[in-house]
Amino acid sequence: MCDGCACGQKERQVPLGISNRHIHLSQEHIDVLFGEGYQLQEIKDLSQPGQYAANEVLTVVGNKGVLQGIRILGPARKQTQVELSQTEARQLGIKAPLRESGNLAGTPGCVLIGPKGPLVINEGCIVAKTHVHFHTEDGLRMNIKDGDKIDLLVKGEKEVIFCGVIARVGDTHKLDFHLDTDEANAAMAKNGDFAYIVNRD
Amino acid sequence: MCDGCACGQKERQVPLGISNRHIHLSQEHIDVLFGEGYQLQEIKDLSQPGQYAANEVLTVVGNKGVLQGIRILGPARKQTQVELSQTEARQLGIKAPLRESGNLAGTPGCVLIGPKGPLVINEGCIVAKTHVHFHTEDGLRMNIKDGDKIDLLVKGEKEVIFCGVIARVGDTHKLDFHLDTDEANAAMAKNGDFAYIVNRD
Repeated sequence: MCDGCACGQKERQVPLGISNRHIHLSQEHIDVLFGEGYQLQEIKDLSQPGQYAANEVLTVVGNKGVLQGIRILGPARKQTQVELSQTEARQLGIKAPLRESGNLAGTPGCVLIGPKGPLVINEGCIVAKTHVHFHTEDGLRMNIKDGDKIDLLVKGEKEVIFCGVIARVGDTHKLDFHLDTDEANAAMAKNGDFAYIVNRD
Repeated sequence: MCDGCACGQKERQVPLGISNRHIHLSQEHIDVLFGEGYQLQEIKDLSQPGQYAANEVLTVVGNKGVLQGIRILGPARKQTQVELSQTEARQLGIKAPLRESGNLAGTPGCVLIGPKGPLVINEGCIVAKTHVHFHTEDGLRMNIKDGDKIDLLVKGEKEVIFCGVIARVGDTHKLDFHLDTDEANAAMAKNGDFAYIVNRD
């Protein structure tokens, strides 16, 4: 049973944050959707340094459905990327594969609608692979190296272990386990809850 | 890592089935929603003996949203019960608690709409506690007793362990691990996949 896990050992504890569906845009696509040279307006810092929630939202349209008010995260990136939960991908009728952020080759596209009109993107829709961020110091303390795959127990109202979660370790990372809304809802977890690194033989 | 688990041991393997949101109705509520003395029409047997999907569907209304075409499962029960995923409960604006089926005291209600008009129910909305069915023979073979709490590894496109899952063992049960759509989507699992009983020390 889970009671035998490494829970309660504070040095193995990782705060968790729930990632809602969101969009990263290239500057080229910002220009099309919001107007030439438009700059995203930052409204809230995110847990990872330099990343922010923008004031701007878009409508995402798939073959079977529409999602309105989808938040854009800044700053602009090299490639436009739409991150959905599996539940949302199904609602939209978009066969978004499980991918690491930035690995977009062969992924399906969608239609994005902004104030300056619709934009058809040919790729960029994914369900993001579960990942956990460690600052270099946290990685050293917890003996986790960049690229390690680890098992994390989420103790919400339920207890669920996410296996083989990719660790990203570096000086620009802040300790944080990212769950999407399906994962959080499956564990009935909420922001402010903790995950625990579980060692199994 | 998960590779060290009991996976691959066929005797510990349990088929999994995904439970969509659904409604169980009392005969009293069937009368109100479909007409006096109405009988549900069976269209498909479910995995558990005697249970079936009915032809009839209802609209469920909460404070924040509406879900249409929600399947009724038969036969009629003593109490009306609306089983939602956490994602759907949030969409509807219904604070459905995590409960075992049938334990409805103090749960929130909703409005159900059928062909004979709306019905306000004062309780009955839950997120069903994850559970796994064993026929008595399977329980003996796998050394699982009714009421045991066990850990089950779901190997979909991701690997997720659901901890403390309640085992229901009896002659009227058929071997089956029930996941709701949040749990299935979190593991990217589909009907026909398997779960594996995991032993941990």
